[in-house]
Amino acid sequence: MVKGVCILGSTGSVGRNTCRVIQSLADRFRVIGLTAGGNLRVLNRQIHQLQPKIVSVRDLKLARSLRERLRMEGYRPRVKIVFGSGGMSEAATHPQVDTVVSASHGVTGLEATYRAVESGKSVALANKETLVVAGELITRLARKTKSDILPVDSEHNAIHQCLRAGRREEVRNLILTASGGPFLKTSRRALERIRPEQALRHPTWKMGGRITLDSATLMNKGFEVIEAHWLFRMPSEAIQVLIHPQSIVHSMVEFKDGSLIAQMGVADMKLPIRYALNYPDRLSINGVAAKGASQLLSWEQMKRLDFELPDLRRFPCLGLAREALESGGSMPCALNAADEVAVEAFLKRRVKFTDIPRLIQRVLRRTSVARLRSLADVWDCDREARAYARESLLNDFT
Amino acid sequence: MVKGVCILGSTGSVGRNTCRVIQSLADRFRVIGLTAGGNLRVLNRQIHQLQPKIVSVRDLKLARSLRERLRMEGYRPRVKIVFGSGGMSEAATHPQVDTVVSASHGVTGLEATYRAVESGKSVALANKETLVVAGELITRLARKTKSDILPVDSEHNAIHQCLRAGRREEVRNLILTASGGPFLKTSRRALERIRPEQALRHPTWKMGGRITLDSATLMNKGFEVIEAHWLFRMPSEAIQVLIHPQSIVHSMVEFKDGSLIAQMGVADMKLPIRYALNYPDRLSINGVAAKGASQLLSWEQMKRLDFELPDLRRFPCLGLAREALESGGSMPCALNAADEVAVEAFLKRRVKFTDIPRLIQRVLRRTSVARLRSLADVWDCDREARAYARESLLNDFT
Repeated sequence: MVKGVCILGSTGSVGRNTCRVIQSLADRFRVIGLTAGGNLRVLNRQIHQLQPKIVSVRDLKLARSLRERLRMEGYRPRVKIVFGSGGMSEAATHPQVDTVVSASHGVTGLEATYRAVESGKSVALANKETLVVAGELITRLARKTKSDILPVDSEHNAIHQCLRAGRREEVRNLILTASGGPFLKTSRRALERIRPEQALRHPTWKMGGRITLDSATLMNKGFEVIEAHWLFRMPSEAIQVLIHPQSIVHSMVEFKDGSLIAQMGVADMKLPIRYALNYPDRLSINGVAAKGASQLLSWEQMKRLDFELPDLRRFPCLGLAREALESGGSMPCALNAADEVAVEAFLKRRVKFTDIPRLIQRVLRRTSVARLRSLADVWDCDREARAYARESLLNDFT
Repeated sequence: MVKGVCILGSTGSVGRNTCRVIQSLADRFRVIGLTAGGNLRVLNRQIHQLQPKIVSVRDLKLARSLRERLRMEGYRPRVKIVFGSGGMSEAATHPQVDTVVSASHGVTGLEATYRAVESGKSVALANKETLVVAGELITRLARKTKSDILPVDSEHNAIHQCLRAGRREEVRNLILTASGGPFLKTSRRALERIRPEQALRHPTWKMGGRITLDSATLMNKGFEVIEAHWLFRMPSEAIQVLIHPQSIVHSMVEFKDGSLIAQMGVADMKLPIRYALNYPDRLSINGVAAKGASQLLSWEQMKRLDFELPDLRRFPCLGLAREALESGGSMPCALNAADEVAVEAFLKRRVKFTDIPRLIQRVLRRTSVARLRSLADVWDCDREARAYARESLLNDFT
């Protein structure tokens, strides 16, 4: 049976890789929906290649340009063009969609992902914010609707694989690995002087601006701790982080009997995407990664693997994320909002690299722990935290 | 339900560890049978502690001493004392036995293990020779009688765990790790001059004389390739060996989708014994390893993990084992017999360290590939290969 897929954020890095995976597995998948922001050039090409039934873009203006462009190019197949958050949700819940790949940036895809879960679709989750800001809401809903959430991001995907070697109640710890980012060896004092262009270089994975910055501060790993909590229902203290500069071991699970199971692989997003889409099947690799690299790990790549504990004094964001998770309720949502504002301020050279955790901490201190009972609560919390962050930026960091 | 266990080779290293594991799991296991060679001191203590129903020793004389000793000590519980290969088989097939732990040295336990499989018992296999000399015979029989064979030895136990992360037909390669032995960095010329006392030091695991020697020549790893072939039904070319001096990663499985799953743990035989006895359950560790070490891996132990390819020119035994496996039939049995004679000759200073593979190669050249259809065939082949080895020792190495 061919499965219908909707890709939220199809023109981003994970979205484009998902398109490639699906094109190579035409006997298993058919794209029903694509949603994107404003990258019409890539979206247009994807429409020609994949012939979706519904496409959503950011706003009406973009929807009109896209319609016009397709008409001019003589594109024949029937395609419904929608826009905005409502359009994205319509694509995600299209009756022919079985699996939604949630790969849009930030909180843009949250509502559509929520609607997909609500209507019982399987979700291959690549978007981080979804579970950071609305983990409780989404996972509770998923249990109710029996919607499967399969993590695409390499760390959680690795943990999903390792967990197969035992039963859930036999797990002692989840161990997320972290490349450590570009400043793994940078002293505390030197961190004060980091410039945006230095922070935007990531040693292993090629990613967008904010996520690269979040890797540099280890906030990214903090978000992953929060996600792991919701995905695998483990308490904060049973989710550990180990720095592993080679990024070959994607993550590990320690079982109560003393066995540690690790998953390794090359740094190619197509592998976890294929895994998440095809689970429980593992399909043979059928191609080469970007730049002609093999999708199989060679022994030379694992010649030496190092592990060390993260330094929470130099990277306080990891500790802040854990605090937010342990406080629960609205705190992780505020954490995410504050981080986004702080990172933006850093990229605009308004604050120092080391001000990022300081600003976030101020926002967390002002936020009161409240349960988020609906998406509306999530948006309120997000808005409030952003306002706090901007206020603090104005008053405390000048 | 409490399971009845028979331990073949209860006074050896794995046997003693099995006794400890079982004593700590009295709600799950009860020792029904113990078999040993001549170590009456340890055996006697085990009888007092575990109160087995049947005990087998090497010969009639030892059986009489044991009976006399128990009588003198006023040991009350009913225990049948038997001896020899027949006695060992009687213990292994005792009607109250559910699981046989096959942990005796060399080929001593082969017949009893065969009988256990024949009568459909589960077998926790710690003895290497069983599958090396009679892999085809034993595994064919096990499929017929639906006897489960669970590997205790850390490498195969690791592979058994890793295989749970996917389906058998999705496996691309098994990767056995090897500490590399004490001569990992020794030059070819220096290997010529190795003395027995140097070879008997093993970096990680404490073991008996021959197995330590087999680790030093990598023949041990060659045997494991053969065992892996029979245990997991993978062809020789899909069973790889990687040197990993830290012995933290016990082995790995590469799946066809590019995922590599590895199992890690501390070097404590009680862990794989517990796994094999309790599979599919993973029980919480409940004690500390020898010398007060924890049974949990600490991150410091995995601070740095190295991997490299084995050097087949310096360690030709690994290549010889693979040749024997690929030739099939009687060849692995001849390999084992020749290795035993060669190692003994080296330990008695009759040949050089580097003569071990030379002698084995001569025996393999003289052995004709024949199918081993019964245990009698195995014994014939074993006898013949030993005779060839002794002849060659007499004529070619003087």
